[in-house]
Amino acid sequence: MNIPVFQDIAEAFERIQGVIHQTPVITSETYNRRFQSSLFFKCENFQKSGSFKFRGASNTLMQLSEEEIRRGVATHSSGNHGQAVAKAARVRGCRAVIVMPKNAPDVKVRAIREYGGEVIFCEPTLESREQTLWALIDREELVVVHPFADPRVIAGQGTAAVELMREVPDLDLILTPVGGGGLISGCAIAAAHCRELGCDRTVPHPIEVIGCEPEMADDACRSFQSGLYTVEGNRPTIADGLRATIGEINFEIIRTYVSDMVPVSESSIVEEMKFFWERMNLIIEPSCAVPLAALRLLGDVIRGKRVGVIVTGGNLDLDGLPWMQERESV
Amino acid sequence: MNIPVFQDIAEAFERIQGVIHQTPVITSETYNRRFQSSLFFKCENFQKSGSFKFRGASNTLMQLSEEEIRRGVATHSSGNHGQAVAKAARVRGCRAVIVMPKNAPDVKVRAIREYGGEVIFCEPTLESREQTLWALIDREELVVVHPFADPRVIAGQGTAAVELMREVPDLDLILTPVGGGGLISGCAIAAAHCRELGCDRTVPHPIEVIGCEPEMADDACRSFQSGLYTVEGNRPTIADGLRATIGEINFEIIRTYVSDMVPVSESSIVEEMKFFWERMNLIIEPSCAVPLAALRLLGDVIRGKRVGVIVTGGNLDLDGLPWMQERESV
Repeated sequence: MNIPVFQDIAEAFERIQGVIHQTPVITSETYNRRFQSSLFFKCENFQKSGSFKFRGASNTLMQLSEEEIRRGVATHSSGNHGQAVAKAARVRGCRAVIVMPKNAPDVKVRAIREYGGEVIFCEPTLESREQTLWALIDREELVVVHPFADPRVIAGQGTAAVELMREVPDLDLILTPVGGGGLISGCAIAAAHCRELGCDRTVPHPIEVIGCEPEMADDACRSFQSGLYTVEGNRPTIADGLRATIGEINFEIIRTYVSDMVPVSESSIVEEMKFFWERMNLIIEPSCAVPLAALRLLGDVIRGKRVGVIVTGGNLDLDGLPWMQERESV
Repeated sequence: MNIPVFQDIAEAFERIQGVIHQTPVITSETYNRRFQSSLFFKCENFQKSGSFKFRGASNTLMQLSEEEIRRGVATHSSGNHGQAVAKAARVRGCRAVIVMPKNAPDVKVRAIREYGGEVIFCEPTLESREQTLWALIDREELVVVHPFADPRVIAGQGTAAVELMREVPDLDLILTPVGGGGLISGCAIAAAHCRELGCDRTVPHPIEVIGCEPEMADDACRSFQSGLYTVEGNRPTIADGLRATIGEINFEIIRTYVSDMVPVSESSIVEEMKFFWERMNLIIEPSCAVPLAALRLLGDVIRGKRVGVIVTGGNLDLDGLPWMQERESV
């Protein structure tokens, strides 16, 4: 599998222009004062299908051949990638089958079905998800759209950083959450080539990219620190979108292009998610609060700097909010 | 008290340009399909202080004399108007005292204090609020900023419609919630004079304005239908921002400029609030969901039309969400 180059991201940017939302970048005096820096939130929670995942799914589906489109696509996902593939498939006019754990929140199942996707349930284990998907592929000859370890997906996700850097060219750094690593690897390649991508910067230094990961699923942090690809040892984090282990191709990109990786605690994720809801009036999911939690830890690294934060998505079950569960368990 | 004219709104628009956010207008394929119309959501939940109220408060405070600014301002409010006045007072560099019921959510008290406002608690009745406020005014010579029955406040709120009509000039109608009537009266005057306000329309008919009110607090609907100013008979609605009874000056404007008034049920408010959270990833308060609930009832009135909806605000207590309470009471 080839690591995508900046030309792939530039082409993805042109390719998906007509089908994605150009999402707003918002600022907040409250946040700027709190962290003594200039923060720019790139609101991918407003992206079609509710997350940045629609970029990678669209970039992939728009490159499938007519024959592949006739066969249709499939993936397994408990969340955003499934919704993105279902929606991108509707745009492309092809069939999409999403394998979901049978305990997936009803709101996510409904969203996929409303986008025209077919849902097949499996047991809530990674093994069952993969087995069910492979059996399906064998039987029905569907084309798999991987959530992160695919150069087309990586290039698509990188367009979020391109849009952000075009709107705010003088950024010093960009923060993203890290699960499988699709978003950060695309954004890190884009940031390294910001000038070639048409981002007209007046400051000479490059834009750094920092990855943010839950402590409970810090395989990418550990791989980054040790230099060895490690996917063992993750525990279930509330940031359900970041439970996937880092992809190999994604790790190769991270070790080349990313400046640092920061692990954050579970409690800080919940606190910062609620703070963002209260102050920004935006619904974000726990995974999306991970870079917000990292802001607390970055201190001098961000003070006085211009910091872009990819606000990744807002798909979650409103009947099971973490602070409600906390209260109930008191 | 004089009814404001379109010139007042045009001046307010220029006056507050530098201090308010120009809020985004967003669209949704899900909503357009559901109601078979083109909906344009004007997101005042992103306005400074979290609601459109900052427009009216700013327009008023920016017209106070130096002597009035030295005295400072006061109001009573359990919610958005108090936050707006506190924030506008900070911008203007003057003191703000907000009388709040002692059972007001902690998050709202904290927000006012963080904006630099002083909070004085009273009993949770309208009588206690007014008595406490008047005693305060007597004692400390503060200037009262009324939440809705003031031409400066009305003109300020009307700028929300001006911005919306400039961005989407070919609207057929605009929906707003109605409590005391500050927002709808400003918007209705603005809509009636859209051409003079620089909204370059290509369709010949005027923009209609429809008011939306909770059935439980439908004094403006009843006044509108009967033609007689009536403020009796309201019961506590979940749309806490709309519990105020309609102002007399506001009613005069409504009967002149508003096309229709629609009452909506409590259950439809909660359902539509949750649907908007889920689909738009935006936090709105119950009051803000009232025009969304009205969309269901408007049927043929909105079908095929271009409809602006003022999304008024997103200040609410995240620890007391209505669907959580419902579940607990099962």
